[in-house]
Amino acid sequence: MNEVVTPRLFRGLRDLLPDKMAARQRMLDTIRSVYEIYGFVPLGTPAVEYLEALTGSAGQEAQQSIFLVENPDFRRGERPASEKLGLRFDLTVPLARVVSQYRDLPRPFRRYQVSSVWRADKPDRGRFREFTQFDIDSVGVSSDVADTEIIAAMSDTLSALDVGAYRVRFSSRKVLNLLLSYAEIPERWTVTNKDDREIELTGADVFRVLDKLEKVGPERLRLELTTGYEDDSGDVVSGLGLMPSQVDRIEEFLAIRSDDRDEVLTRLRQMLSGVREASDEIDVLARISNQLKLIGYSDNRVVIDLSVARGLAYYTGPVFEAILLDAPHFGSVFGGGRYDDLVLRFLGERVPATGASIGVDRLLTALVELKRIKLKASTAQVLVTVLDQAMMNEYLQITFELRRAGIRTELYLGDKGIGKQIKHGDSQGIPIVLMYGPDEKKGGTITLKDLTVGRAQAAQLTDRAAWLRDRPGQVEAPRADIVAAVAQMLADGPESPALQ
Amino acid sequence: MNEVVTPRLFRGLRDLLPDKMAARQRMLDTIRSVYEIYGFVPLGTPAVEYLEALTGSAGQEAQQSIFLVENPDFRRGERPASEKLGLRFDLTVPLARVVSQYRDLPRPFRRYQVSSVWRADKPDRGRFREFTQFDIDSVGVSSDVADTEIIAAMSDTLSALDVGAYRVRFSSRKVLNLLLSYAEIPERWTVTNKDDREIELTGADVFRVLDKLEKVGPERLRLELTTGYEDDSGDVVSGLGLMPSQVDRIEEFLAIRSDDRDEVLTRLRQMLSGVREASDEIDVLARISNQLKLIGYSDNRVVIDLSVARGLAYYTGPVFEAILLDAPHFGSVFGGGRYDDLVLRFLGERVPATGASIGVDRLLTALVELKRIKLKASTAQVLVTVLDQAMMNEYLQITFELRRAGIRTELYLGDKGIGKQIKHGDSQGIPIVLMYGPDEKKGGTITLKDLTVGRAQAAQLTDRAAWLRDRPGQVEAPRADIVAAVAQMLADGPESPALQ
Repeated sequence: MNEVVTPRLFRGLRDLLPDKMAARQRMLDTIRSVYEIYGFVPLGTPAVEYLEALTGSAGQEAQQSIFLVENPDFRRGERPASEKLGLRFDLTVPLARVVSQYRDLPRPFRRYQVSSVWRADKPDRGRFREFTQFDIDSVGVSSDVADTEIIAAMSDTLSALDVGAYRVRFSSRKVLNLLLSYAEIPERWTVTNKDDREIELTGADVFRVLDKLEKVGPERLRLELTTGYEDDSGDVVSGLGLMPSQVDRIEEFLAIRSDDRDEVLTRLRQMLSGVREASDEIDVLARISNQLKLIGYSDNRVVIDLSVARGLAYYTGPVFEAILLDAPHFGSVFGGGRYDDLVLRFLGERVPATGASIGVDRLLTALVELKRIKLKASTAQVLVTVLDQAMMNEYLQITFELRRAGIRTELYLGDKGIGKQIKHGDSQGIPIVLMYGPDEKKGGTITLKDLTVGRAQAAQLTDRAAWLRDRPGQVEAPRADIVAAVAQMLADGPESPALQ
Repeated sequence: MNEVVTPRLFRGLRDLLPDKMAARQRMLDTIRSVYEIYGFVPLGTPAVEYLEALTGSAGQEAQQSIFLVENPDFRRGERPASEKLGLRFDLTVPLARVVSQYRDLPRPFRRYQVSSVWRADKPDRGRFREFTQFDIDSVGVSSDVADTEIIAAMSDTLSALDVGAYRVRFSSRKVLNLLLSYAEIPERWTVTNKDDREIELTGADVFRVLDKLEKVGPERLRLELTTGYEDDSGDVVSGLGLMPSQVDRIEEFLAIRSDDRDEVLTRLRQMLSGVREASDEIDVLARISNQLKLIGYSDNRVVIDLSVARGLAYYTGPVFEAILLDAPHFGSVFGGGRYDDLVLRFLGERVPATGASIGVDRLLTALVELKRIKLKASTAQVLVTVLDQAMMNEYLQITFELRRAGIRTELYLGDKGIGKQIKHGDSQGIPIVLMYGPDEKKGGTITLKDLTVGRAQAAQLTDRAAWLRDRPGQVEAPRADIVAAVAQMLADGPESPALQ
């Protein structure tokens, strides 16, 4: 206990102090209420999973970013590979494990989960190594109605969170596969990477790069698809080695942009008219678009955006993401898609699934930056101050009387004078300060200071509950017993509170 | 993707399936509302902390049970000691770090935090390696009013959670120190442990053993205080090497038991009358007891129990815990105490603090076992079934109309027939099933099946919202626009729903 430890956090981790944490909690409550209106049910899984369950399912990039976990028993010895543990990097892989492990879960299984996930990525603005995801997924459903429902839930969630203007954008991995045919990109090819090693690439790598369009812009996208480039920090970004003619076709595809979903579909059909099976895959997008129209999700909230690719490798069908129009630099705050093959690796049986994940921390950061969230440090509505330490028992009684009436009350427990106490309440945004000293006691009054307007009022002691009740927006209604006492007082005709 | 992975979890970890997770969520909501009535503010800290911040503060036992975390960058090399990472084992140490790190936090700082913690202990019933704690703490407060407030909050929380009969018990580490004097136990002594190594012991080891009284019983307690013993699984439990005369005095102390707090205080004063400074330390317990009486926490909820020691080493003053009288074998479900020296190791400055932590998972397990929590797998109030796939667009419209009215609705998305669909709703506890097929469409009706009574009713299609509204306890009131439409229909004199 003698050595002083420097208080600090590992880079990319952060604390959420009360003002942000309270705002985050309100966000989680809102998201949960939307997901429950849709009838999704909650699931909880541990943060620590076997590494073999986590790896191999989400592309090389995700594997490299898994934090390893060691039981202290194994500090000296090496744990066998099948016993190695890691922190989950998303909530989708644990869901796939759960669906395989508990065979009596309902099918369809429509669950929500809110939990921390960990990725050992390079930290960036609004990008942390530990962050919270809030997911919904429908497992065991091949119907594209499930995809429609996820898109609608994304839109409803963002509306309920009052994020301002947003767009939910969707496309399909299958349509992107058509693009690969159209651009004459083979199933597999090899390039020499920056370390002079030959590596094999697939279409998934093209999608991973396409997903960066918004972040890096069209020029760097073209370079990464072809020769690679050196980024601002001097790091070499390896190129995929595509030919200019192939990238031209990709750009032709990406140029199909419109807020009118039907127009995008029409132009897409024209462009891909020569590609086999194109019509069927485009029909899926058209069906989802029509279903959305039918239930009221018009072009001003949900668009088809062919640049939506999503980074993770496990998607197999429709993919979705959402951006804030007032803060596009935060990128996707809500994303997902259909992943019909993920459960396969546990079960050896194909279980269709689709879902989406909201990045709670990134969205919170964006909403604070946009000043759409008002940060408030305290939960208390009243601060009971201590004017005279000898009267502490009375302060305790007043405090607990207020609390029992449902009024969120802090009793000042420090050792500072009344000026500092009021400052303490003010700095935390507590609206009302209650003062009761020897003078008030003698006169049978109580002083209440409204910190929101800086005004003090003296009220008859018995008037306290009524005064608090009459300040709408600042305090909740007291419970029935207090309300009854107040009603009696009002019937008795109390003096109205006068300014002190 | 070709190799099938066995879905499984590391021993001591577990999933929370929807029925338990929903019950847990209701518990968390309840706990949070009590803590907020007390004006505590939320805090969030990462799961991953520097190991040096975690160790050295909570006794040897806790140190041995920290899961280590490795950034994948370091997979090959050894990370320097000061850069090693671990998963937090409680929420108190991170709080101490936060208080030291952000010097502009309010003082007193009264925060709540609900998060997972990890301990690599031997798993046991109701004891997991990853579990959730929900803590309240007041930092920067030396007044014992803060301890009183924590005890009152523990009692209020357990009452709000409707756990049945419980007792909050409190004592004081300082009174236990008096016991060490009374029993003539030295500050430090050495014994030879089971591995034939000499180890140094202190009073904290006595407290750690005393904390097991409820779990192991008085006989094994005596053995562990003296010679040690072999437990049921054949493991050797090392003894502390105390003399029988010393243990006699400990037992004399533990024999002071009464539900009457004043009686315990009187007998304690008598027993320790010869011990220096005993009076002052007992006065602290007496003050807390009197304050509790004053604000309505009588002997039937809160008792002074001298066997309360708490296992962790960092406590310095009053200690608290709570047990369920109907499930005492679960041990303490809520515990804490004053720890005035914990912040010292970060700041080099003494910051008094006190608080308590509720073991959410253990309490949930206990309440399920006591059948005090009713588990329900679904959040949905209505299941919209699919009688005819060709009518899917209409089902979608009905579903979203219900959702917009605030009714939690699941649209059946699987491929099974109506019998299996109803079974799906029934097994998840969804009260109402909505059926609408070609016949209903032709007749302008809709069939609603109340699964709670197994009765089907046919209602005029336009009557749907009214029918749902008139089933109290099963569905929430529709929103104003739906209510208005229903009111209009009622004024028009609709046919009353008839049994089909």
